[in-house]
Amino acid sequence: MAVFSALTPVFVATLCVIIAYLLKSFNRSEEKRAPGGAGPPPAARPWADEDLQDNTEISPVEDDGELADSEDDVPQVPYVSMCYTPKVMLQRSRDFYVLMNARRSVRFFSPETVPREVIENIIRTAGTAPSGAHTEPWTFVVVEDPQVKHRIREIVEEEEEINYKQRMGEQWVNDLQRLRTNWVKEYLDVAPFLILIFKQTFGLHPSGKKKTHYYNEISVSISCGILLAALQNAGLVTVTTTPLNCGPQLRQLLHRPPNEKLLMLLPVGFPAPDATVPQLNRKPLDAIMVSM
Amino acid sequence: MAVFSALTPVFVATLCVIIAYLLKSFNRSEEKRAPGGAGPPPAARPWADEDLQDNTEISPVEDDGELADSEDDVPQVPYVSMCYTPKVMLQRSRDFYVLMNARRSVRFFSPETVPREVIENIIRTAGTAPSGAHTEPWTFVVVEDPQVKHRIREIVEEEEEINYKQRMGEQWVNDLQRLRTNWVKEYLDVAPFLILIFKQTFGLHPSGKKKTHYYNEISVSISCGILLAALQNAGLVTVTTTPLNCGPQLRQLLHRPPNEKLLMLLPVGFPAPDATVPQLNRKPLDAIMVSM
Repeated sequence: MAVFSALTPVFVATLCVIIAYLLKSFNRSEEKRAPGGAGPPPAARPWADEDLQDNTEISPVEDDGELADSEDDVPQVPYVSMCYTPKVMLQRSRDFYVLMNARRSVRFFSPETVPREVIENIIRTAGTAPSGAHTEPWTFVVVEDPQVKHRIREIVEEEEEINYKQRMGEQWVNDLQRLRTNWVKEYLDVAPFLILIFKQTFGLHPSGKKKTHYYNEISVSISCGILLAALQNAGLVTVTTTPLNCGPQLRQLLHRPPNEKLLMLLPVGFPAPDATVPQLNRKPLDAIMVSM
Repeated sequence: MAVFSALTPVFVATLCVIIAYLLKSFNRSEEKRAPGGAGPPPAARPWADEDLQDNTEISPVEDDGELADSEDDVPQVPYVSMCYTPKVMLQRSRDFYVLMNARRSVRFFSPETVPREVIENIIRTAGTAPSGAHTEPWTFVVVEDPQVKHRIREIVEEEEEINYKQRMGEQWVNDLQRLRTNWVKEYLDVAPFLILIFKQTFGLHPSGKKKTHYYNEISVSISCGILLAALQNAGLVTVTTTPLNCGPQLRQLLHRPPNEKLLMLLPVGFPAPDATVPQLNRKPLDAIMVSM
């Protein structure tokens, strides 16, 4: 408690400088962030890092124009923790691993519908992710309308046909006939739901002033990880796709504002009865974990 | 099945071009990727997208030098899905939301130790995340040694002191005394485990040739989202921090190779008995979800 309240002036000071800097150079930093969505330009990184490091989930500071006062408006409350016995913790960690390890990227869907409330709970769950300065820079567009799904499919397939024809080069001319099959993304019609995840590269203060969203791409990707876990937990499947070339067209189709950029497109539903996946292995623990 | 096997030549063709392109321009694209870790340069994006879009979890294609043959080495297997009744799905989606919604960024830790096997299961779980072309571009460094934890704390606090002194400017000179408190990251000593998550910006083929890791930052961030879910599921707490300024020093301290860059540092353990969190609200569903 003492330590935390001692941090107060830092939040205020840090955020003042961040916002002062960004009001000056927003356009430039916005451009630089766009490709990777990875925060302000190098000069400001220490602030961005500090911000994400210590102000995660301190919303009012960012939302309120009057920083000096707003921090005082964030009361501290006791953290209520789960208390499991070591035995229960171990069992829960094993069970969750088994559940998540059964997840695969599935490309063959059943047209069978999914209870809408399940989808809503999954989006709610994705919305619990941490984000830089609690900006919650995500928008989940859930598409169920067959016409809209089909238009999305047309945009994605069209864009990919262009990619192939312009980039494959003559060496692949003989494959073009067969390649055509890959332009076909049948699952975009078949899956009962398409979830398009947009990152908000910046937000707006009530005053209308732009509010930077630090590390919006990392924050939204973390949220996607929690969303994938929620889908798996509910017995649904998806395939993680990033049709970035289609971003602008899909953003317009879905009437999203210019500050939002498409990060991922997830077809969501039940697997087709005859769905297959490539047989692959994941790296063993000792290949991904180092202990010290 | 028919659709999928028809895709085979596309994986082969696409990946041949990707790798041909990257072998030519790797050094340049590597530099461009470094800051954001966000994939190859613009010119190659369509390929990267296509790669992440359709080849997620097709490991051997990327791992095997002989692309034309390797794709045939990935047998297809039936996908075994969970089958829950709508009622059970709904309950599971509700329960998982309640569990995840209880997660908070906690900065006050108990020194109480955590069963090592629980940490290992949580890392295993994070390792089930999807990744571009199944490159699994993550390394989780789990630090338990008090000396190493303290050295990490020194590096982080040192770096932040520099940030303040060099960037606060005279206008904040009066705050410096109070700011000093924020350089103190006590939890880096107190938390029983520190998990440092590195993104592998590129890998190496058995032949020694560099292998690009598409969207390694997005992939590792998704993995972090699943890791946060696994921690919460086990009753542990953390705070998501990104001390990027300390990346190079921490990478050297932990003897990580140059292709790895620090993405996040997570103190992990049980909350202190008197741990508090700022009282905040998350956006309601209708503020993050759009239906069509």
